[in-house]
Amino acid sequence: MRHQFPFSAIVGQDQMKLAMVLTAIDPGIGGVLVFGDRGTGKSTAVRALAALLPQISKLQGSATNAATLEDMPEWADPVSGNIIDVPTPVIDLPLGTTEDRLVGALDIERALSRGEKAFEPGLLAKANRGYLYIDEVNLLEDHLVDLLLDVAQSGENVIEREGLSIRHDARFVLVGSGNPEEGELRPQLLDRFGLSVEVRSPKDIEERVEVIRRRAAFDTNPDAFVEKWSVEDTKIRNAIMAAREALKTVDAPDDTLRDCAGLCVAIGSDGLRGELTLLRAARALAAYKGSPSVTRDHLRAVASMALSHRLRRDPLDDAGSSTRVDRTVEEVFA
Amino acid sequence: MRHQFPFSAIVGQDQMKLAMVLTAIDPGIGGVLVFGDRGTGKSTAVRALAALLPQISKLQGSATNAATLEDMPEWADPVSGNIIDVPTPVIDLPLGTTEDRLVGALDIERALSRGEKAFEPGLLAKANRGYLYIDEVNLLEDHLVDLLLDVAQSGENVIEREGLSIRHDARFVLVGSGNPEEGELRPQLLDRFGLSVEVRSPKDIEERVEVIRRRAAFDTNPDAFVEKWSVEDTKIRNAIMAAREALKTVDAPDDTLRDCAGLCVAIGSDGLRGELTLLRAARALAAYKGSPSVTRDHLRAVASMALSHRLRRDPLDDAGSSTRVDRTVEEVFA
Amino acid sequence: MRHQFPFSAIVGQDQMKLAMVLTAIDPGIGGVLVFGDRGTGKSTAVRALAALLPQISKLQGSATNAATLEDMPEWADPVSGNIIDVPTPVIDLPLGTTEDRLVGALDIERALSRGEKAFEPGLLAKANRGYLYIDEVNLLEDHLVDLLLDVAQSGENVIEREGLSIRHDARFVLVGSGNPEEGELRPQLLDRFGLSVEVRSPKDIEERVEVIRRRAAFDTNPDAFVEKWSVEDTKIRNAIMAAREALKTVDAPDDTLRDCAGLCVAIGSDGLRGELTLLRAARALAAYKGSPSVTRDHLRAVASMALSHRLRRDPLDDAGSSTRVDRTVEEVFA
Amino acid sequence: MRHQFPFSAIVGQDQMKLAMVLTAIDPGIGGVLVFGDRGTGKSTAVRALAALLPQISKLQGSATNAATLEDMPEWADPVSGNIIDVPTPVIDLPLGTTEDRLVGALDIERALSRGEKAFEPGLLAKANRGYLYIDEVNLLEDHLVDLLLDVAQSGENVIEREGLSIRHDARFVLVGSGNPEEGELRPQLLDRFGLSVEVRSPKDIEERVEVIRRRAAFDTNPDAFVEKWSVEDTKIRNAIMAAREALKTVDAPDDTLRDCAGLCVAIGSDGLRGELTLLRAARALAAYKGSPSVTRDHLRAVASMALSHRLRRDPLDDAGSSTRVDRTVEEVFA
Amino acid sequence: MRHQFPFSAIVGQDQMKLAMVLTAIDPGIGGVLVFGDRGTGKSTAVRALAALLPQISKLQGSATNAATLEDMPEWADPVSGNIIDVPTPVIDLPLGTTEDRLVGALDIERALSRGEKAFEPGLLAKANRGYLYIDEVNLLEDHLVDLLLDVAQSGENVIEREGLSIRHDARFVLVGSGNPEEGELRPQLLDRFGLSVEVRSPKDIEERVEVIRRRAAFDTNPDAFVEKWSVEDTKIRNAIMAAREALKTVDAPDDTLRDCAGLCVAIGSDGLRGELTLLRAARALAAYKGSPSVTRDHLRAVASMALSHRLRRDPLDDAGSSTRVDRTVEEVFA
Amino acid sequence: MRHQFPFSAIVGQDQMKLAMVLTAIDPGIGGVLVFGDRGTGKSTAVRALAALLPQISKLQGSATNAATLEDMPEWADPVSGNIIDVPTPVIDLPLGTTEDRLVGALDIERALSRGEKAFEPGLLAKANRGYLYIDEVNLLEDHLVDLLLDVAQSGENVIEREGLSIRHDARFVLVGSGNPEEGELRPQLLDRFGLSVEVRSPKDIEERVEVIRRRAAFDTNPDAFVEKWSVEDTKIRNAIMAAREALKTVDAPDDTLRDCAGLCVAIGSDGLRGELTLLRAARALAAYKGSPSVTRDHLRAVASMALSHRLRRDPLDDAGSSTRVDRTVEEVFA
Repeated sequence: MRHQFPFSAIVGQDQMKLAMVLTAIDPGIGGVLVFGDRGTGKSTAVRALAALLPQISKLQGSATNAATLEDMPEWADPVSGNIIDVPTPVIDLPLGTTEDRLVGALDIERALSRGEKAFEPGLLAKANRGYLYIDEVNLLEDHLVDLLLDVAQSGENVIEREGLSIRHDARFVLVGSGNPEEGELRPQLLDRFGLSVEVRSPKDIEERVEVIRRRAAFDTNPDAFVEKWSVEDTKIRNAIMAAREALKTVDAPDDTLRDCAGLCVAIGSDGLRGELTLLRAARALAAYKGSPSVTRDHLRAVASMALSHRLRRDPLDDAGSSTRVDRTVEEVFA
Repeated sequence: MRHQFPFSAIVGQDQMKLAMVLTAIDPGIGGVLVFGDRGTGKSTAVRALAALLPQISKLQGSATNAATLEDMPEWADPVSGNIIDVPTPVIDLPLGTTEDRLVGALDIERALSRGEKAFEPGLLAKANRGYLYIDEVNLLEDHLVDLLLDVAQSGENVIEREGLSIRHDARFVLVGSGNPEEGELRPQLLDRFGLSVEVRSPKDIEERVEVIRRRAAFDTNPDAFVEKWSVEDTKIRNAIMAAREALKTVDAPDDTLRDCAGLCVAIGSDGLRGELTLLRAARALAAYKGSPSVTRDHLRAVASMALSHRLRRDPLDDAGSSTRVDRTVEEVFA
Repeated sequence: MRHQFPFSAIVGQDQMKLAMVLTAIDPGIGGVLVFGDRGTGKSTAVRALAALLPQISKLQGSATNAATLEDMPEWADPVSGNIIDVPTPVIDLPLGTTEDRLVGALDIERALSRGEKAFEPGLLAKANRGYLYIDEVNLLEDHLVDLLLDVAQSGENVIEREGLSIRHDARFVLVGSGNPEEGELRPQLLDRFGLSVEVRSPKDIEERVEVIRRRAAFDTNPDAFVEKWSVEDTKIRNAIMAAREALKTVDAPDDTLRDCAGLCVAIGSDGLRGELTLLRAARALAAYKGSPSVTRDHLRAVASMALSHRLRRDPLDDAGSSTRVDRTVEEVFA
Repeated sequence: MRHQFPFSAIVGQDQMKLAMVLTAIDPGIGGVLVFGDRGTGKSTAVRALAALLPQISKLQGSATNAATLEDMPEWADPVSGNIIDVPTPVIDLPLGTTEDRLVGALDIERALSRGEKAFEPGLLAKANRGYLYIDEVNLLEDHLVDLLLDVAQSGENVIEREGLSIRHDARFVLVGSGNPEEGELRPQLLDRFGLSVEVRSPKDIEERVEVIRRRAAFDTNPDAFVEKWSVEDTKIRNAIMAAREALKTVDAPDDTLRDCAGLCVAIGSDGLRGELTLLRAARALAAYKGSPSVTRDHLRAVASMALSHRLRRDPLDDAGSSTRVDRTVEEVFA
Repeated sequence: MRHQFPFSAIVGQDQMKLAMVLTAIDPGIGGVLVFGDRGTGKSTAVRALAALLPQISKLQGSATNAATLEDMPEWADPVSGNIIDVPTPVIDLPLGTTEDRLVGALDIERALSRGEKAFEPGLLAKANRGYLYIDEVNLLEDHLVDLLLDVAQSGENVIEREGLSIRHDARFVLVGSGNPEEGELRPQLLDRFGLSVEVRSPKDIEERVEVIRRRAAFDTNPDAFVEKWSVEDTKIRNAIMAAREALKTVDAPDDTLRDCAGLCVAIGSDGLRGELTLLRAARALAAYKGSPSVTRDHLRAVASMALSHRLRRDPLDDAGSSTRVDRTVEEVFA
Repeated sequence: MRHQFPFSAIVGQDQMKLAMVLTAIDPGIGGVLVFGDRGTGKSTAVRALAALLPQISKLQGSATNAATLEDMPEWADPVSGNIIDVPTPVIDLPLGTTEDRLVGALDIERALSRGEKAFEPGLLAKANRGYLYIDEVNLLEDHLVDLLLDVAQSGENVIEREGLSIRHDARFVLVGSGNPEEGELRPQLLDRFGLSVEVRSPKDIEERVEVIRRRAAFDTNPDAFVEKWSVEDTKIRNAIMAAREALKTVDAPDDTLRDCAGLCVAIGSDGLRGELTLLRAARALAAYKGSPSVTRDHLRAVASMALSHRLRRDPLDDAGSSTRVDRTVEEVFA
């Protein structure tokens, strides 16, 4: 088994790491879009997150990682009642994945050998209760991104093709990495991602040297390196699990709701997804920090990742999106 | 079973809700096109409408929801004579639906296993006697929209493909949501929708806070929330059922016909679909309000949704379509 | 069985109705192209014509509506010798019809089950001896329009595909509706339609009210409405049948031929299809009117529908095509 | 059996008729391209030519119309030794003909039922020893025109597809009609047609009236009309048959060769296909006229049809191609 | 069997004929590209070359024309040990050849009937040890030209498709004809042809007359014409066979190598294919002329055909490529 | 078996040869991109490298060249436990390779004959533990290059198609040749190649003559030529094998890491792939030279090949990329 670079050993990139932690606490926040330079460890971070996340309990043999027999879709093959623990699934969308492998399709083998029209689950089934990672999501065809966002949001995969009429749970967090130089996503798609963060190569020599040093150490002796960082990784895992429990009890006072609405009106985001996401992300952060209710500090910490991809473009303002969101927060909270 | 956000708990958006109610009373009005900002709850409203609508009686096993044996198409498999009650079908057109799943196609399984050329009904069959919802209808290919409108209008699905020559009932209301920023529908297609409404994000902070509050309440405890709003939902359901009964008895005096024609000439709508739809919508509203005949108030209330997508564009008039229709109504009725 | 709105109850639209009647008398006139605004009842008129036309006698079971065993194509399945009466077929080209369903194709079922290469007739076979209606013919791909016009003109469907080499009778009148705003037909295709008429929404309030009134009456009680208009419909049917008989005896004196040629030279139509069609339409009209020979009045009445789509465009003359044809007629006949 | 409008009853259009007669005498001249207005009887002329041509003797059952067993391709099914007379084949390329039906393809029926890889001949096989007619050749895809010209020139159809490696005789005259308004053929393709003629609608009223009169007479009583013109048709057939015999004995003196080369240099035609075609056409005309050797009169008569499509375009000379060829002939022969 | 126009009876076109002879002596020179006007006998020359070339000895039944059992590819069907003499293969790439027929493909017949995954060799196998002719190579898709040049250069056909992983000898000379008016080949592809020659229509009347005279003589009596020229053809064949033997003994002194390098630097050809080809062509010419070593005269004679397609374009120099190469030769050799 | 031109006999092109040697020592450096003129022996060098590389030990019959049973993927057919030595695989991506042959696909033969859904490995499996060469990588479709780089980087081939869900080792060095005149690779793809080198035709006559002389010697007597150079080739092979062993012990002091980071900041390369690659290449060079630790001389020697394709374009600086990298090295190391 291959070693995974530890999540906590990633140098810097705090926004990206926070966004991933928050969606691990409340998957309802929606997907995460990671913009940034080439070679900044976007895919490493996702794979590291996978290794850090707690295991899930599932029915042995269930293609959709169903926890109980009641969650099993009607088309599924019979499974034993055994419950097993498996790592939280992190499904990687390999280049060239066909739509039928994504959503599932007619099981050709059974069709040919037994003359039955059975369903063969796809990657969306495998990703249920976990993460689905897409490298360079901006290179994916719009209709596939649309489909993925649709399923991620509804938590259900509905198949109507090849004579199949199937639906099954598909609750997962979509993580997409993108390179803004390679063409942008349509605003319509942007808005449907919960959070967005930007990552940049460090400009500081010592920080870069630290990255090289850790990477070289990992390449030379992965066992020792993983061991060394396991304490930090465990702390994060425990905090995530505690936050999941606490989430329902975190209070969001009316002032907070009003702050959310005020911020979204101020930045001019369309619709109401802005405030709904902002509230969920702040609530998850409060839970992560052990705070009993959402405060302005929580809002401040997540405003940029929840809103910067919902900002209207302003050709007269050449500040970055994050900067503009943060500036607006200060004005509104002043 | 998942809880559905209650129709009556939707904050504002009165035109959209009215348009949906009217087509629930008289499906002959035609489809509804909902334009608007992202995140304004368009799809929530449709799903809410589905949960509110009364159940229908159908022959158990009928793929087209046939009410009696006489309504069964000739190609259908034998069904028992049992009559069952099921929720009014609301069929959601998932992204990537293929044309064969929409209109129906050759049943490959039976072709392969039994050598028979049988028909396998598609989504249009399932939608019979219910609703068919398309998110982002403007992203659908024109020929599919055309096909859907054709079937919706004729109430019949005619299949001529793969050696099949089949027809069956397909009486449903088409609800399409669209985002005007993403490319517009051709005028030819616009005209074939019965009603159109525009939805906007509320600009008022308190209204936005109310939306967030209700959503958060629903997310936290859906049972209690649905229970709380069931009284309101039931009122609407009852009013719809009463209006369906009353519809045939609502009178449309000659003055009303003349008002309809006068309005359409004044706004310059092509053809006669404008006045026919305006009359049907006003009649449905009258029935909903318990009024014995159609009055100018009814026309006034539905003029914008029946006519604004039939208005010719006027580059010198930068008022919105609804405003221009309402202004014309006041001039004509003056 | 559904009721059809009666042909004679259509308000106005006299040119369209006349064009349809004339091709019902002499199908050799060629297809009819109906241009016009949306919602002007183009498709209603065609369906009404279908219901009005007299029945035809055919061999029971013949896929091409063959009247006698000698008319049966060689590939046909054996039929009994029974002669039955059926309504004149009016075949509607549904959207999404594939080319193989149009012209016919290999019968997959027989190929799979019996290993035979049999022909399965398409819509062109069904339309033999009747009408083929295409809504929005300008949206059809050019090669399909070309194919339809080819078959309509030759009266024969020749299939060379999938290892099939088949021909069968396909004598039908092609009726295409089109919306000039949606892109025009190529001149080459225009020329191959026999007649063209333009329909417009009535501008007169009372006429519009009459349309709404009749439609509402039909929607409310179709039985009574159809009954009320059956006398008028029967008159038209009888006149058509009488005219079919009289057609061969109607004389076309040399002066008439010279008028035809003179008119076509004056309007500058290419080729000779203009005068040939003008003569046939005028002769059909004379037969319909019970006149023993073609007169200038007959030519006058049909000149516009026979020639306006063959007029060269004149950028300096902003009169409509019909107006320009009528003006030329008056000059030539002066 | 349907009546065909007689070749000799066609009014005017002498160049087109002559070009067809010449290729009937010597198919080696190459294909004929007929340019012209719509409705000028291009397709009527080809079908008339078919009916006029003498019958050919072939082995009963031969798919390529082989005259003797030695001409049978190796892949052919066994045929009896019976010799039968059949009309000279005139194959019409129907719209939508697929490439496999044109060149031939794997015989699916035999592949499926007997597991054999047999060849099923296409239209090019049927056209052997006859004519192949393409309406609107300029609308055909370039690669198909290229293929047709290739086969027409080599007299052999070579198939390398679907695991087939087949060749058979395909000696036919290609007749293509085209409308210059609809897009032109590439010069490369133009050059590979042997002859080209242009047809126009008559401008003379009396000539137009004569066309209408003959057509109306034919439509009213085809038997009588065909009978009346059969004497003229027979004369032409006999002259063609006599010319075929005489062709090899017609002398082409060196002065004639020099005239051909001189003409082609003068008009600037590329390559040497110009003079080779000019010589063959003139020789065929001499044979048709019963002349023992080719004279300048023969060259004059066919120069335009052999050369006008090989003329380089001259933007400063707005005379038509035919006029420019004829003018050059007069200068060179002066 | 059809008669082929004799190679030696071709009037003029000396460069084209020489290029073909040289590659017949040393196929390692690479392919020949023949540019030129339409109708200049390019394809006739190739077919003539085929008829003139000496026969080859091969194992009876070998699909790749293998000379010995050791040359047989492993996938081949068993062949008898009989050695037979067959004409040097000249494979003509018919229009519409599919890639699978070119490189070979899965043998569908055996797959279906015997369930075996056997390889069915394509045209590249047939062309082994011979010529492959492509008419209008510039109309071929780039990827196919690329593939052909790749195989021609490596002498091996490597197939990786449909689950096949096969390689077999494919040593052939590629001859491509092209028309520069129809779009040019990419420089990358140009460079991979060994030689290029240009052919033009003769401008001299007497030469044109001679062409027509020989063609007419061949058409009238092919037997006599072929007989008459067989002496000349035999001389060329014998000279080619003697040159093949002598090739390895022809010396290329260092001065010759230096001349080659100097010439290529002077004309600025990229890479080193220029001098390598120039040397091989000059050596083949020396062998053909019976000369013991390569001289400047040999280089002079082949410089244009080896280098003109490798010349960089010079917008200020409007001389043709050949002229510029010849001029450079004179400067370098001065 | 064919002789391969010896690696050491290649004249000049030192950067290209060094880059290939370094990746042979440490495949983790990533792929090599070779830019350059046509005909500069790019493909010869790769094939020569293949012949020079040491053999690998593998399980007989393993499709992925697995060294031990533990490395065998789960889907593999059973293999014997025999260990055999085979040449280091160098897989050539032939033009027209389909994606399924590249990544592997459903084994159709087994699917048809045994009804099993077995995996048939593709070229990526064959290339495991070796080299994969792509000629003209810039002509390959982006998505295939992306896929190749993805697999090369992760060392694993993940297949999700046709109902297969497979992964297997695919550790290979990707070598791509490209011609900058034929269109460039996207920066995103450039960055993912480890090294890049540029090759040019020698401008020196004597060097060119040496190339021709060696090539002619090889063509005339390959055995003798290969024998003559085998001593040099063996030296290189031994040095590579020694360096592989030494690689883990080569020290990279903190100053070296700082130099790497400093260089990358100075040239402005995005992300951190620049320094990671630079370090690995310098370490491999140190091992090749027998040096115990990485020095500035090693960095200097590989800086250009590790960084020049990561340089931002500077329109004001017309020096080549290599020159600019070397200049920056001198400034930073000054």
